[in-house]
Amino acid sequence: MDINKIGGEFGLIERLTKKSTNKQVIKGIGDDAAVIKFGDDYLLFTTDTQVEGDHFSLDYFTPRQIGKKAVEINVSDIGAMGGEPKFFLVSLVIPKTMDVEIIENIYKGMREACNKYEIEIVGGNITHGTQLIIDISMIGEAPKQNLKFRSGAKPEDVIMVSGDLGSSTAGLNLFLKNIDGFDDVKRKHIEPEAKFYKVKPFLKYINAMIDVSDGLASEVTRICEQSKTGAIIYADSVPIKQTTQKAAQACHKNALDFALYGGEDFELVYTVSEENMDKVKGIVVGKIIKKKVVRILKDGKEETISGHGYDHFLTNV
Amino acid sequence: MDINKIGGEFGLIERLTKKSTNKQVIKGIGDDAAVIKFGDDYLLFTTDTQVEGDHFSLDYFTPRQIGKKAVEINVSDIGAMGGEPKFFLVSLVIPKTMDVEIIENIYKGMREACNKYEIEIVGGNITHGTQLIIDISMIGEAPKQNLKFRSGAKPEDVIMVSGDLGSSTAGLNLFLKNIDGFDDVKRKHIEPEAKFYKVKPFLKYINAMIDVSDGLASEVTRICEQSKTGAIIYADSVPIKQTTQKAAQACHKNALDFALYGGEDFELVYTVSEENMDKVKGIVVGKIIKKKVVRILKDGKEETISGHGYDHFLTNV
Repeated sequence: MDINKIGGEFGLIERLTKKSTNKQVIKGIGDDAAVIKFGDDYLLFTTDTQVEGDHFSLDYFTPRQIGKKAVEINVSDIGAMGGEPKFFLVSLVIPKTMDVEIIENIYKGMREACNKYEIEIVGGNITHGTQLIIDISMIGEAPKQNLKFRSGAKPEDVIMVSGDLGSSTAGLNLFLKNIDGFDDVKRKHIEPEAKFYKVKPFLKYINAMIDVSDGLASEVTRICEQSKTGAIIYADSVPIKQTTQKAAQACHKNALDFALYGGEDFELVYTVSEENMDKVKGIVVGKIIKKKVVRILKDGKEETISGHGYDHFLTNV
Repeated sequence: MDINKIGGEFGLIERLTKKSTNKQVIKGIGDDAAVIKFGDDYLLFTTDTQVEGDHFSLDYFTPRQIGKKAVEINVSDIGAMGGEPKFFLVSLVIPKTMDVEIIENIYKGMREACNKYEIEIVGGNITHGTQLIIDISMIGEAPKQNLKFRSGAKPEDVIMVSGDLGSSTAGLNLFLKNIDGFDDVKRKHIEPEAKFYKVKPFLKYINAMIDVSDGLASEVTRICEQSKTGAIIYADSVPIKQTTQKAAQACHKNALDFALYGGEDFELVYTVSEENMDKVKGIVVGKIIKKKVVRILKDGKEETISGHGYDHFLTNV
């Protein structure tokens, strides 16, 4: 669940929605999922919308891949809160001319993800529209001690990522520029996977966490906004695979930009105190600071970043 | 949550989704909301999608009314399960050219409904698309003894409705034919309201329940499908207001057709055993029978109905 993916209108939902006063609402707007106390349990609640032409194209996604991706994205949001995904509803909007086989294959992809995570589709609806749109809303659960918020970062925490970044955006650019080869990189875009299993063994040492939907710079900025801190990102430490670098070169683009300002890698970004660093796995990519500014340190120079990174220039061809 | 609103493709989601084997899932596909056991509580989970041009038109809905309607529809689904609405997420798809004021007013309408029902928006997202689409997913809760399913009807039960039918479809037809006047009827279409408060005092005597999204004939058929029964609908007893009758006449349409095959009245349809009839309020409109067929009794003649009622001929002009 992203607060708002539309460039230039960030914070719109936050502005339009009053802050919760209900004691059941542990976290409302402003994190990967809402957290609601439900009896003795903590319920996680998130939604994500995939619009044809904006989030995927039938030119290079199979319907099965679209269905699977729509589920993975929501699973990633639940996982980024420290939770386990459980059940979801599917709202499909389909053009009237669309073949029923496409719908069947979208569901096939969703059922694949269901089997993988042992989760279930418990309902939904299908309506007609001009574009193919898949909107999934998912609930998950977490014991209290596992809950992780964007707001938990503390000055001097190190910032870590669970794996390499930039490959999904590199894959997208390869498709958009019709560049042959680089199948592994392309697959990162059309078959993204939630990565929350990577951080499960050391969840208790994590102070703040978010998944990479919109690029590292964007996600670190979100952690800082919610934690009322700043950060320094060590650009030279950002993990980027050789194949991603080569794919970016083939697209005449910069792989670091893909990692910082691209998205959909679904790796986890988390902050940990220095004393707990040796108890967790991951790559150190920055540090939380007290001053409320996000800077990027690159080749010994620091520059301030603004905005949230998600930017269409990265995919314009 | 309707299983499937697309004419001719009923049961598609049911076919595409395997039956739940998870013990937490008390009810998956096939009712107004999914029911999930969550600790000691029963969680209700539903979603509804409103597509511009299909479910509403900006020609006669204000943005505030669209926002409010999107919430009321989900509240009605939760209420039809015997539950209380609690929290919801909003996925908005908006055309790039749409003025931010429209979005603000949609949210204004949603907040109005929030105040009315003491419920809260806990998150969501906004994405770009070619049509305005509002998808709400809502959770509610219910104590076990209040849970009502479509599947609980028993032969010899009487079928009752909580109020008059057909006015919303009459309102829609007035708009489509540009007929002046009939403001009360038109308001039923553009400002629909959930009616579950009407049945709350006598919930415990109800065997099966559903809300009227798609017309009485459709809803009775759904109860029968889930309950493995049939029914006789007493057409002459279906409550239709004088103003609805007059509006239908002005549109050269039949008000009874609006009530039986129209929709969006959001009254409740429920079945009650004969011995409990005097303990509940409502209008008797039929009877559950053992034979799995749904018949309409009109002017002393019976005719079998097929399909679910939702039919575009009712709104074609």
